[in-house]
Order: sequence, then C-alpha cells, then structure tokens
Amino acid sequence: MAIDFGERIGQWMSGAGRDSDVVISSRVRLARNIAGHRFMSRASLEERRELAAKLHQAVLAAHVAPSVRYADLEALPEVDRAMLAERHLISREHAEAEGPRGVAFSEEETVSVMVNEEDHLRMQVLHGGLDLENTWSEMQGVDRAIEREVPYAFDSQFGYLTACPTNVGTGLRVSVMLHLPALAMTRELQRVFNAAAKIDFIVRGLYGEGTQGHGDFFQISNQKSLGRSEREIIGSLEVVIPQIIRYERRVRDGLIGEHRRQVEDRVWRAQGILLSARVISSEEALHLLSQLRLGINIGIIKEYDIPLVHRLFMLSRPAHLQKLEGAELDALARDAARADFLRRSLTAPRGKA
Amino acid sequence: MAIDFGERIGQWMSGAGRDSDVVISSRVRLARNIAGHRFMSRASLEERRELAAKLHQAVLAAHVAPSVRYADLEALPEVDRAMLAERHLISREHAEAEGPRGVAFSEEETVSVMVNEEDHLRMQVLHGGLDLENTWSEMQGVDRAIEREVPYAFDSQFGYLTACPTNVGTGLRVSVMLHLPALAMTRELQRVFNAAAKIDFIVRGLYGEGTQGHGDFFQISNQKSLGRSEREIIGSLEVVIPQIIRYERRVRDGLIGEHRRQVEDRVWRAQGILLSARVISSEEALHLLSQLRLGINIGIIKEYDIPLVHRLFMLSRPAHLQKLEGAELDALARDAARADFLRRSLTAPRGKA
Repeated sequence: MAIDFGERIGQWMSGAGRDSDVVISSRVRLARNIAGHRFMSRASLEERRELAAKLHQAVLAAHVAPSVRYADLEALPEVDRAMLAERHLISREHAEAEGPRGVAFSEEETVSVMVNEEDHLRMQVLHGGLDLENTWSEMQGVDRAIEREVPYAFDSQFGYLTACPTNVGTGLRVSVMLHLPALAMTRELQRVFNAAAKIDFIVRGLYGEGTQGHGDFFQISNQKSLGRSEREIIGSLEVVIPQIIRYERRVRDGLIGEHRRQVEDRVWRAQGILLSARVISSEEALHLLSQLRLGINIGIIKEYDIPLVHRLFMLSRPAHLQKLEGAELDALARDAARADFLRRSLTAPRGKA
Repeated sequence: MAIDFGERIGQWMSGAGRDSDVVISSRVRLARNIAGHRFMSRASLEERRELAAKLHQAVLAAHVAPSVRYADLEALPEVDRAMLAERHLISREHAEAEGPRGVAFSEEETVSVMVNEEDHLRMQVLHGGLDLENTWSEMQGVDRAIEREVPYAFDSQFGYLTACPTNVGTGLRVSVMLHLPALAMTRELQRVFNAAAKIDFIVRGLYGEGTQGHGDFFQISNQKSLGRSEREIIGSLEVVIPQIIRYERRVRDGLIGEHRRQVEDRVWRAQGILLSARVISSEEALHLLSQLRLGINIGIIKEYDIPLVHRLFMLSRPAHLQKLEGAELDALARDAARADFLRRSLTAPRGKA
C-alpha cells in the first residue's frame, strides 16, 4: 500500500484566505478518548488493534467530509508516513510510532482524524489564512459526527479525559501558523513571543514542539486546555493574532521604506540561489522560499506567485521529494535532487503556478 | 591633479602568462637608497623634498620603460592614491603616508618605482603568470638604468643598505601571487604555508602584510634578503611554486572527479549571487569572483572568461569603484554600487571581455 498525492497540496497551503500575506493557516485540534477503553499507553497490543479497527469504521461511518480516505499507518511505507506528516495530516510522532494506528483525511486535506495517536482520537481541521471561526465550527461538526458513532471518555468535573494532563478539559489546541520574515529580520520576534506568553500561548516552529522557526514560520498555540472554555481560548487568539499581523506588516513597510536596498538584496539573493544552487538542504530551502514569499508579498518579485511558492515548500520536503523522484535517497542525494527540483520549477516555464 | 585609468587594468592582471590557471602574477621588488642622504625616517622635510625632486628627475631620465608617467602623491587626491595601491603600483603605506613622495610607472603598469617610500626608492617589475626569470631580468635593467642617474648606498660587507634590516643585502623581495581555491576549499593550505616556511618564504594575503587571503588569493615571498644571492632567492621560488601549482591542480581534479556536485554548487551559487545581489562588500566580491574564476578554469562556466573576471576584481575595489562612479561613496553606498556594477557587467552584454 502506498499513497500518491502527485504535485497536489492541501487546501490549507493554497495561499488563499484572509490575511494570507502573514497567516499561512488556522488549525483546531481536539483530543478524544473512547469510554470503556484504556489510554494508549496502558492498552495491550490486542486492545489497540481492536480500537484501531473500531475507530477506522467509526470515523468512516461519521462522514466527516464528502470524501474521506483512511490510511492504515501500520501497513504504509515509512516515506509515505513521513509525507503525511509533512502535509500536517498526522503528527511526526504518529508517523514514527509502531503498532495499529491510522488516519482518516478529507480529499481537500482540511479534515484529518488520527486513530491511536497519544489519544485514541486526535482530530483536526486546518484552513488557509486566518479563519478560526469557521475552522472551529467545522471542528465541532466533525466532533459531533464522530461522537454519534463512539462514546467519548468524559468527566463532569475535568471535561474530556486525555492521556496527557495538558490536554484534559476541552482537549482543544488552536494554532495559527504565521510567516514573520520582517520581524525575524529585525530581531523583534521576542516581543511576539512575550505577547503570546502573556495569554498562555506558546510559539513553536513549523513542525511543532522542539523545532525552530525555520524559514521564519511560527505556530502560535494555546498551552492549556483546562480551565478555559473553547470560546475563551479561540477568543484570545482572535485578539492577539491581528496585533501580530499588524506588527509584521508595519515592520515590512518600514523595511521597504527605509531599507529597501537591503530587503531587495535578501530577496534577490534568495531567488538567485534558488535558480543556481546544485545542493540545497531542507532547512535552506525553507529559508530561501521564505525570502521569496516575502518578496512576492511586498511586490519586489512579480514573476512568481504565492501558490507556486507554497507548492515548492511542500514538494521540496524530504519525503515529498523522494516520492516525486520515486526513490529512496540519502541526505546528500536529497539535497542535490531538491536543488534540481527547485531550479527546474522556478526556471521553466518560469511562470506562476 | 587626478589619474584616470577608465576601465583599463594593468598587463599583469590580463590573465595571460604561464600557469595562469593558478598563478596570477610574478613580482620582483628592489629597495634602494641614495648615497649621501639620510634614510627617510631620519631625513628632514626639506631633505625629503629635495630627494623627491631629484629622484623624480632621475627616474624619468633613466627611461626605464617606453612610456613612463610620474605621479606626485602629495598632490594626488586620496581616492587616486588608493586606486594606485589597488593596482599594486604603490604600497598601501605609500598611499596613506604624508609629505613629498611619488611614483613612476610604465603605461602597461609592469614597472613602477616608488620615490620616498620606506626607502628612497622601491622599484618593482610585475608580470602576469609565472615568469620570474624575465621579471627579474627586466628588474635588473631598471635597477642599472636608475643607478646610472643616482649613486646607491652600498656597503661592501652588507650589500645594499636599507631602512629596515629585513631588506638589507640584496634589497630584493620576490613574490608570486597564487589563486588557490581548491586548496582553500579542502583546508590543505597549511601544507603550502609549511612548505614555504621551510625555504624561508612567507605566505600573505592579496594586499600584503596583515591582510588575509581574501578570495583564496595568496602571495608567497621571501622573508630574508641578506645572506643569499638574488639567484638563490629566485631559484628556490622556482622550485617551490611549481610544486604548489601541481598540488592545487591535483586537488582541483580530485574535486571535479569526486565532488563535482559540490564544486558546481559553489561556482553556480557565486554566479547566481553576483547576478542577483543588491549589496556586495569588497571582501565578498573577491570571494565570489574567486569562485567564478575557479569555475572558468575547471570548465564549469563557459559564459565568461578570465580577463573579464580580472577586470571585475580590479574595478570593484573601493577606490576604483568610486572613480568609476565619479563620486565619493560611504561603505554602504559602495556596497550597493558594487553589486550594481558587478550585476551589470555580468548580465549585459553577458559576454566575454
């Protein structure tokens, strides 16, 4: 069994949506466990297998989206699992784990439901741009649809019970992925981190905990899921995110006004390197494409558009690249293939996506 | 008074000559003082003025080359003096000094004679490629021609007397400027330094003592001028330089054979940045042009040739750049003008020099 997305990317990476010059995507995630079953860490292999089968059926029966596909991760090659993680359809932990587990996801990749992750169910809705309201409302629909199929573990005092105490209560994690190249360039990110920390939100890199803000991409998400209602959690993000957006835009304007030459230098160098290099690491690709994205957003680069850049972000990730090449490649070969792929994609037809 | 070379560069930078894939130029320098006069450090302003006038006349009268021009450095603007230093017609010290002093140089810039530098006379002959024999023989002609005009301070025991003891004896410094990008890339330069040190030669950067090997350019020159004859000094360089040339070529071949992708990456990136950047420091320009020079020499880059790259080396130096722009520029403005100049020169007509 294998999965092939070809050169398609998820709707949330389309570059569309409100405030998409700064906001890549809005994400809501719920953690749920099934009543009458042990948490994953305590469940036997047999129970986990039983859970996987039951939840596979339940999630499909719930019809959470018009067209839903289920991938049995136990049967899926490593590169395919890594690809699903790169698409943010599953967590890296879920990709790398062992045992009976899976994921259901909609064709547009806006909805995904992980089965037998840290919790029995981890569901997410993911949309491009700043769209917490609709994302949350769609998440509620998914949650209710699945609850009709399986009984959730719920405590009237604590709320939804979860494997890790940080998820108890609402089981909710809301996060917004931001592109903050101007704030990164002027070293003013610390202020953003502080503002987020004040309302108990945390800033992470592109691929969650422990990853740096590669390519100036940052995820802001709530730390606590207990003691505040879903509306309160989303409400405080809806206050702080527009402030960060305005801040990033103001600094971009300032850079263009007062340091145009330096900004142009960075943007054109990035394009020059993308069009010339023969070896590009995954991390450097993020960085270069980030500069290109900034260049397009502030009007320096007119030859490419955001959807193309987003497609390259995704397709140049290690697993995607190997799927495109149709071969397992070591790190050196990947860096060479990545440089060739990026150069080719930006050279001919040298056009917009 | 001002000097304008336009876009011309000296013959020694033409890229011609033997072993010019590795050897930029061969240089011989003699230090001489005039009998009956104090050394520069002891001479009064009046005596130095008298010396300058006398030596100006003597050097022109000596007809050391078909067409010789004399520049009175006391009357020359700072940027012009810096430009002469960038062309290696005078030392940086001579450019930055004060008081009566000058330089005579031939139209092809192969011969120059500094007046009132550390010694009363510092003469040099400079040729492209590895050509110590002819360079030394031409130097002897210049030396004899000038000696017919003025009496040298000479001691039968010590030889030629000089202001600094390191120059006493022959007064000779022989140096060869090498381009060693492959040895630099593989960090094998230390071996070259050690080989040079064994025969009492020293390795310096592009602009003499105290400068680093910017852009992988290194000068190898003798440390001692006493106790060995001119022939011995030149003879030992003629042994060691071909060894270094072979070593650099072997490493270049090895890089192309085994690490072609990595070498191409460096070379194409350098070209990509030269064609894209909007801000390039003097040091980075040397580095990028060095990679381009390597790329041409090993056949990766076919669009440009060595004479063009050498012209850009020279014309992108700070003083030359300001002469070309016709304005005094601060460091930031220079870096912007340099990037524009390099991009323009390599883009259109996008051809060979």
